[in-house]
Amino acid sequence: MARRIGRRPGNPDTRATILAAARTTFAERGFDQASIRAIAATAGVDPALVHHYFGSKDKLFLAAMNAPADPAKVVPTILAGDPDQIGERLVGAFLSIWDSPAGTPAVALLRSAVSNEWTARLLREFLTTQVLRPVLDHLDVDPAQAPLRGSLVASQLFGLAMARHVLRLEPIATAAPETLISSVGPTMQRYLTAPLEGQPPHRRSRVTPPEG
Amino acid sequence: MARRIGRRPGNPDTRATILAAARTTFAERGFDQASIRAIAATAGVDPALVHHYFGSKDKLFLAAMNAPADPAKVVPTILAGDPDQIGERLVGAFLSIWDSPAGTPAVALLRSAVSNEWTARLLREFLTTQVLRPVLDHLDVDPAQAPLRGSLVASQLFGLAMARHVLRLEPIATAAPETLISSVGPTMQRYLTAPLEGQPPHRRSRVTPPEG
Repeated sequence: MARRIGRRPGNPDTRATILAAARTTFAERGFDQASIRAIAATAGVDPALVHHYFGSKDKLFLAAMNAPADPAKVVPTILAGDPDQIGERLVGAFLSIWDSPAGTPAVALLRSAVSNEWTARLLREFLTTQVLRPVLDHLDVDPAQAPLRGSLVASQLFGLAMARHVLRLEPIATAAPETLISSVGPTMQRYLTAPLEGQPPHRRSRVTPPEG
Repeated sequence: MARRIGRRPGNPDTRATILAAARTTFAERGFDQASIRAIAATAGVDPALVHHYFGSKDKLFLAAMNAPADPAKVVPTILAGDPDQIGERLVGAFLSIWDSPAGTPAVALLRSAVSNEWTARLLREFLTTQVLRPVLDHLDVDPAQAPLRGSLVASQLFGLAMARHVLRLEPIATAAPETLISSVGPTMQRYLTAPLEGQPPHRRSRVTPPEG
């Protein structure tokens, strides 16, 4: 599967070649299955060179995504504090990135994901593995429910970004962050932790008492 | 402001000319402010001809939008029944349209709205005036809160469509409609009717007792 693009170490385009290979590999295999080794093979370079340029797989992924913010810095601010307000902090962090100068590339990324299947895959992987997974882990969510809970959270966050920054739906487009935090935060909290109807309750392990 | 495109009644392109004029006028002025008379003037035809081809302003708007479903048929099914389950019926109706053959043009419309400001305006007007307004009216929502409630509902519906049909975020992409109705329905219900924090309570009129 690995395609050699034919650049050699030291070539000034090596960094760009690695980034292109990383985008391909992350989109094709997903973040977890994409190894530095596979990305290096696709780029036709030594894995050590990938480490040299980008440090870790996380950082390579951020660079490949042109990510508008570093989850390693943002996620801890969401997790710190009362677990019952994690939904509000998640919306607050999300809005503060999208309302900042980093919002412009974020909007471009969202627009691109809508028309480009590969960008959609990268965006999906980014949100799922870099943002939502640590939040769900922190809340000790039942792993069987984590994917649905995570994708529900993502659906509301994408919709909020669409309404505020792309479709410019009023009053969301110009609302104070506090208004959106208090309106949407409880939705996030419910998707993350409340029992979802028709789903087993939110517990990591359940002991079923023997019958009789 | 009206631009005469120069078609005359009876021209075989008259219908297309009226539709183009309608798209321009609805996007520029919004649904409420766009009159049949203004659309006819933009198209360079007699208003009677617009009525002849399209019947009502509502129907002209649906045709101009290439709307995937007729709200006049769908909205009553959302409103009928227990008001406490209007959120679930709204999600159910939404999913049944997007999961049907009408979903293909709906996805195309959403993609187009993301890259095209005018389509975004038409989509916004369509959802706001044709779908959400009757639902909010039916629930007797405080008019001062209706725009925020409506746009919150829209944000989650857009996000759900994005997650299920555009970004294909699992498990939302392939979940049974019932799973999404029971997960997202209560969010809709809350956005429509529950007190929004930091907002005055959900009442059409309030009487403040005199002091002392």
